[in-house]
Amino acid sequence: MGRRFSLPSDLFGPLFADDAVAAQTDDGAVLRALLDVEAALARAEASVGVIPADAADAIVAATSGSFDVAALGRAAQSSGNPVVPLVRALEKELPESARPWVHHGATSQDVLDTALMLVAYRATGPILDALRAATDTLAALAQRHRGTLMVGRTLGQQALPTTFGLKAAGWLVALDTAAARLRTVRESTLAVQFGGAAGTLAALRDRGLPVAAALAAELGLAEPTVPWHTDRQRILDLGAGLAGIAAALGKVSLDLTLLAQSEVAEVAEGGGGGGSSAMPHKRNPAGSILVRSAGLRTPGLLATLHTAAAQQEHERATGGWHAEWEPLRELLDVVGGASARAARILADLRVDADRMRATLDATGGVLLSENVSGALAGELGRSAAHDLVKNAVASGRPLREVLLDAGVASDRVDAALDPANYLGSADALVDRALAAHAETWRGSAG
Amino acid sequence: MGRRFSLPSDLFGPLFADDAVAAQTDDGAVLRALLDVEAALARAEASVGVIPADAADAIVAATSGSFDVAALGRAAQSSGNPVVPLVRALEKELPESARPWVHHGATSQDVLDTALMLVAYRATGPILDALRAATDTLAALAQRHRGTLMVGRTLGQQALPTTFGLKAAGWLVALDTAAARLRTVRESTLAVQFGGAAGTLAALRDRGLPVAAALAAELGLAEPTVPWHTDRQRILDLGAGLAGIAAALGKVSLDLTLLAQSEVAEVAEGGGGGGSSAMPHKRNPAGSILVRSAGLRTPGLLATLHTAAAQQEHERATGGWHAEWEPLRELLDVVGGASARAARILADLRVDADRMRATLDATGGVLLSENVSGALAGELGRSAAHDLVKNAVASGRPLREVLLDAGVASDRVDAALDPANYLGSADALVDRALAAHAETWRGSAG
Amino acid sequence: MGRRFSLPSDLFGPLFADDAVAAQTDDGAVLRALLDVEAALARAEASVGVIPADAADAIVAATSGSFDVAALGRAAQSSGNPVVPLVRALEKELPESARPWVHHGATSQDVLDTALMLVAYRATGPILDALRAATDTLAALAQRHRGTLMVGRTLGQQALPTTFGLKAAGWLVALDTAAARLRTVRESTLAVQFGGAAGTLAALRDRGLPVAAALAAELGLAEPTVPWHTDRQRILDLGAGLAGIAAALGKVSLDLTLLAQSEVAEVAEGGGGGGSSAMPHKRNPAGSILVRSAGLRTPGLLATLHTAAAQQEHERATGGWHAEWEPLRELLDVVGGASARAARILADLRVDADRMRATLDATGGVLLSENVSGALAGELGRSAAHDLVKNAVASGRPLREVLLDAGVASDRVDAALDPANYLGSADALVDRALAAHAETWRGSAG
Amino acid sequence: MGRRFSLPSDLFGPLFADDAVAAQTDDGAVLRALLDVEAALARAEASVGVIPADAADAIVAATSGSFDVAALGRAAQSSGNPVVPLVRALEKELPESARPWVHHGATSQDVLDTALMLVAYRATGPILDALRAATDTLAALAQRHRGTLMVGRTLGQQALPTTFGLKAAGWLVALDTAAARLRTVRESTLAVQFGGAAGTLAALRDRGLPVAAALAAELGLAEPTVPWHTDRQRILDLGAGLAGIAAALGKVSLDLTLLAQSEVAEVAEGGGGGGSSAMPHKRNPAGSILVRSAGLRTPGLLATLHTAAAQQEHERATGGWHAEWEPLRELLDVVGGASARAARILADLRVDADRMRATLDATGGVLLSENVSGALAGELGRSAAHDLVKNAVASGRPLREVLLDAGVASDRVDAALDPANYLGSADALVDRALAAHAETWRGSAG
Repeated sequence: MGRRFSLPSDLFGPLFADDAVAAQTDDGAVLRALLDVEAALARAEASVGVIPADAADAIVAATSGSFDVAALGRAAQSSGNPVVPLVRALEKELPESARPWVHHGATSQDVLDTALMLVAYRATGPILDALRAATDTLAALAQRHRGTLMVGRTLGQQALPTTFGLKAAGWLVALDTAAARLRTVRESTLAVQFGGAAGTLAALRDRGLPVAAALAAELGLAEPTVPWHTDRQRILDLGAGLAGIAAALGKVSLDLTLLAQSEVAEVAEGGGGGGSSAMPHKRNPAGSILVRSAGLRTPGLLATLHTAAAQQEHERATGGWHAEWEPLRELLDVVGGASARAARILADLRVDADRMRATLDATGGVLLSENVSGALAGELGRSAAHDLVKNAVASGRPLREVLLDAGVASDRVDAALDPANYLGSADALVDRALAAHAETWRGSAG
Repeated sequence: MGRRFSLPSDLFGPLFADDAVAAQTDDGAVLRALLDVEAALARAEASVGVIPADAADAIVAATSGSFDVAALGRAAQSSGNPVVPLVRALEKELPESARPWVHHGATSQDVLDTALMLVAYRATGPILDALRAATDTLAALAQRHRGTLMVGRTLGQQALPTTFGLKAAGWLVALDTAAARLRTVRESTLAVQFGGAAGTLAALRDRGLPVAAALAAELGLAEPTVPWHTDRQRILDLGAGLAGIAAALGKVSLDLTLLAQSEVAEVAEGGGGGGSSAMPHKRNPAGSILVRSAGLRTPGLLATLHTAAAQQEHERATGGWHAEWEPLRELLDVVGGASARAARILADLRVDADRMRATLDATGGVLLSENVSGALAGELGRSAAHDLVKNAVASGRPLREVLLDAGVASDRVDAALDPANYLGSADALVDRALAAHAETWRGSAG
Repeated sequence: MGRRFSLPSDLFGPLFADDAVAAQTDDGAVLRALLDVEAALARAEASVGVIPADAADAIVAATSGSFDVAALGRAAQSSGNPVVPLVRALEKELPESARPWVHHGATSQDVLDTALMLVAYRATGPILDALRAATDTLAALAQRHRGTLMVGRTLGQQALPTTFGLKAAGWLVALDTAAARLRTVRESTLAVQFGGAAGTLAALRDRGLPVAAALAAELGLAEPTVPWHTDRQRILDLGAGLAGIAAALGKVSLDLTLLAQSEVAEVAEGGGGGGSSAMPHKRNPAGSILVRSAGLRTPGLLATLHTAAAQQEHERATGGWHAEWEPLRELLDVVGGASARAARILADLRVDADRMRATLDATGGVLLSENVSGALAGELGRSAAHDLVKNAVASGRPLREVLLDAGVASDRVDAALDPANYLGSADALVDRALAAHAETWRGSAG
Repeated sequence: MGRRFSLPSDLFGPLFADDAVAAQTDDGAVLRALLDVEAALARAEASVGVIPADAADAIVAATSGSFDVAALGRAAQSSGNPVVPLVRALEKELPESARPWVHHGATSQDVLDTALMLVAYRATGPILDALRAATDTLAALAQRHRGTLMVGRTLGQQALPTTFGLKAAGWLVALDTAAARLRTVRESTLAVQFGGAAGTLAALRDRGLPVAAALAAELGLAEPTVPWHTDRQRILDLGAGLAGIAAALGKVSLDLTLLAQSEVAEVAEGGGGGGSSAMPHKRNPAGSILVRSAGLRTPGLLATLHTAAAQQEHERATGGWHAEWEPLRELLDVVGGASARAARILADLRVDADRMRATLDATGGVLLSENVSGALAGELGRSAAHDLVKNAVASGRPLREVLLDAGVASDRVDAALDPANYLGSADALVDRALAAHAETWRGSAG
């Protein structure tokens, strides 16, 4: 059978997760990470001279074997985690002389924590790739539509002119911020765990810290100041890094569903999606809806990590550690799915600039009343200009007509009512967003 | 391949979920429920005369076929839910004449909501079975240990004598309360969803409501007042019913880990679990720890359901509906796993009554100072008795010695210092808990 | 100084809370409830003969005195709760003979838990009053607008015709469900707490349970099976009762903000609110926005109650109890504020039936394509009718034109394209909702 | 009247909040911050030449006036925020010529967001001071107790020897990590908000960005790339910074309550707190309990910020913004209270090194079985040594006796059974923690 989604399932998985990410988070990937940690530990201990080199070779070789995930899962129940049966299974594959050296000086939590850090490292790679693609697309949209006029909306009400470029720039800055946060976590916070049974590295005598350093080097993870068995700040950073992305994407996808409403129709999802069998006239923003659901789920998952982080008794927690495993994988899956889907939606987004302009024009100038008052103040006097506009708005008549009736020259009227003349710093803000985007990803592959 | 845990995975599944429950929540079970709903709908519509009887027969027959979960999951992406591709797949299995009648008048959410209600109904059966077993065991412990003296602890400090029977009775009342809440939800709140594309049942003209009634009868679920596509109060009740159990079990398992601490050692988990390969002297309360982790995870999942319930736009939500599916299954799995494991732990619990008594006796009577003051007030005067005891406690000398030195008769001393004489209503409270337990489950199979 | 909002503050309080509710939840109200519990305990103990009647009289008299909230708050720090200093303050007001009898046999948690139950009882009164008003208004809207045609929207897209009456009926059913849940909690779940220091009622010997019963009768609260110091199921029910209302109101207010969008404009908030100083053309749905914010906050507060409920060590929790106090008051305040504001918004709601109809008409019949196919099937044959409509929709031409061109008689066309002929059970569903509403509140004052 | 706790109230405030922090978060402080922003805006706009210098002077002068918080709160209801009535109140204090220039070009959210950033900046000062004190105390404990032997506990069971110094070092690293995160947020993330009605700074034409830069300089806050009205990543960082501290303190306080248990009694809170009026023998860890409650509350508050961050429609949210205000203040208060209380508890902590040693010695060497096996392997052979120890542990006899009976020399036995010889890297880890602590606070005042 091919690879499957361990979370959130084959049936719903394709809606909420992403293949490339789930390939790094599913059961097989976790098992592979566990084995990688045991192998790296053996290599690290051999390099420091704690275990014989041939034992390390045998252990490394054994970790490339095939193990039965489901059997390990069942056997995990008596010890409460899958590392104990995995070590036993590894021992069976080893020559007698190497057996005492597998998992030497380590405790189950050392291996499982480090393996989950590896999983996070590996899964955040494709997440960041997706975010790179999504933000590059947003940058292109911001650039392309910096002159595309549309109505800005506050509290659901049409407020002032803006540009679709600036709207895209706002999405871009938020998503770049979130991506940069996750990248920092990936590069600096994900660390090996190595403390032995009580966090003292007692079994390794005075050679514990060199082994820890070698282990970190083997795996490409950070080396912590001290073991963090019951200090879960790293998990909180990882959780914040992931949930922050879902929040940023949640806003983008909410805006997309609002812009795609039948009555607004200023954007539409491209591609073949969103068809309704019963109602062929509908074009549902199906992708945006799925992305939006991610932003509703991640706060609860992040809260669980925080709750668990405060329930960390002594040198090993009685439940607070175990409570992390699944929410962490689920955060990776949900954020991975939302990131990849958002990248696809944005790449295919249909932006209807004409409709945007038509919406704006249909407001009859009322959005520009502030501009008009200012523009006519020199000619009519500040107070008279203000009253003229205020009365016009109250009357519901088009501002243009009122102004012409009042004897204002038509070119003055046109200029005052041109929304392109009332965009303030929109263009400059797009420039800043684009510069920040380039800075965010400078030096990244992609 | 045999059945697997869809959530939370094969590797961690056996730790956090239960086979009997997961068999009702995994992908296969959800697919079966979806097919059951389509079949029931066809039968209901035929019974009301909305679709031909032979079409209904053909549809029912087709729903017993085999469908590819993974293919449905992949195909779900364009519509955003798996019902659309499932209906298409069903149509392929039908004779041409029956095709227009499958899923007749229904919308995807009708089928998926109803299917998840069926899943919840089916999964809560084994959960309630486990709770019945766990609470029966607690009732037996309360009865057996109503005379087992132990120290009561408040804010982590030894406070007054109590009995292990009363402690078990407290656990019992909480768990019975939670189980009764879930049973009420199961029997009264889980309802069919049937409203058609916009909640009006338009496609069924004036026969929508009779079909809804027949559908509810077919499936053994409640019939709602109106379609509840964007009214998620039922989901909130289900979530509260499940999370309440995890909270009750969380407290029980926390107490068990505390009582099992090396320094307390008043209970131990039986069975073969909890061994530590590195430290053979340890007897970890591995089961309690896993149960405890459930109570740390459910609050976030419940919060997600509440968050989603407020994000329900118009006649179908743009993400708030989708955000429910996985947290709901996860709540069923996590609570199911904790319930079954708690039942096993409690059935095997080793209660060390001697150790409990020894802990109490080691306090040297200080826990009974209030009782002693009262007992001697008649003989010595209230004020003198109070001062005598207060000074004794302050001195740190055993109360017994101080009282004998003060000339109190030894039988009076013995009586005043016997913790069995200072249990207040402990015994009567156990009776009340047992009576309430019997009442809770009256009329239930078990 | 007049009464103030203790939560959420004078500055933001009027936005998020309600005067009538906050008057039952602020510091003064909590203090009054604490004193009421001490008075009721004295009366109950005197009635059972546990304390002298004149001591009880003196205690009751003392509880009507004035105490300094801020001083009690400061003094609470050494014991960790305000009951200890309050009892000391009461003792100072008592004759020497009565002093030993105040708070007799009780523990701090008995008094604070019972007081918070009283606070909840008193605060849920005005909340239910507001919900009664809001639901009566919704019932009137459902009745008045049962024939007001509007477009039903799914996933943000125009889908099928519905009525504003049915939309209001959907809001009504959800809010009635939530209100009924809270009323049940108020009448059945809110209970006295009385267990003494370790939950055995030891200090009262064999008269603890009669005192508990008398205390419950004095205060009009339920009598629990056993003390619930570390069984917080009642708190969870109260939390669910409150948060469920915010979820229901969250959906209503979300719909209102969407219907009030400039591009939709089918409803508007009445009253003087929502003006924007900078943009006089705007009519912000300011009330709906504040109500909507409540539904975003309550999930986190409810999660906190669930988290705390699982952290309840032994006979008194080390933090899990203390974590409840403020979230509970905040839930009462936030839900009280949202309920009262929703009642006001709905009472003043401006429903623009003409605009609703115009929106529907502007769809050019495409929402009725399913109806048209069915209506013409007899005349043209099922397949030909279906193809005719499908091609018409695809062409973008108004259905009416296409049908007339195809030779369908104009009265047939009119009937098939009249949305009033495609409402299915909308009217009957309104009837059901109204009947359920009457049933929900049968026997309630109001 | 003196200053009061706006949150969480006078009655509970002293338990959960801190005077120095609450003085920066209460209603008066928020009002002061709002006025400070209006003043800074006027100064900034005058400096750029957007408004007349004398108008700015007048505005600055007016902001030092006294305004009625409660009246502003009541008046906020029609607009939905307190900025609108505050600007009106300021205008009343201004000469006519200056009135048009107050709040010029700004929108309510500009002022309120910036004011809350100022509040956060000011409140996090005393929080970081408290954390500095708490971590310095932890560093001193780690140093002083680096040789204080105690038992390490995993899953509630005695596991291996460790030192109290290493335990304190673990607390230290977590709290330093959390404090550093908050400091980074304070110094880099807290930013001014300035975008005008729709985020374009339209009213300021081409001078919006210079004003934004000047405003940031005036207030000592960061200048954002673009306005962040609906990009709440900064709020998420602030929430994470605060909640991370509560998580770290939650673990510390949990450990303290466990170490303070009657049966363990290895630490006690000093000071006068924790007395129980009913039970004079009790010494409740009252401070730790209050700190622990903070870690149970913050996850729900953080989740609310994340939930709100995803509900940010277009250019101004319909509720998602309003939902932040109180949770943000509450996070500041709760974390401030916990930080200050933790600093006091730790400063007064009574560490009973003798009791720690006695606990360790009472284990009879079983915690050292691994060490003993290793130590005797040379003498007896690896396998024989292992079997000897294993059988001894199984027999329950003291290891010392068994070893002497087996003929091992008594000095060898003593050495193998000395827990000081089995501490691995404990001492080196303390060094690393102390070095990291110094690095964390390098350059900070303190």
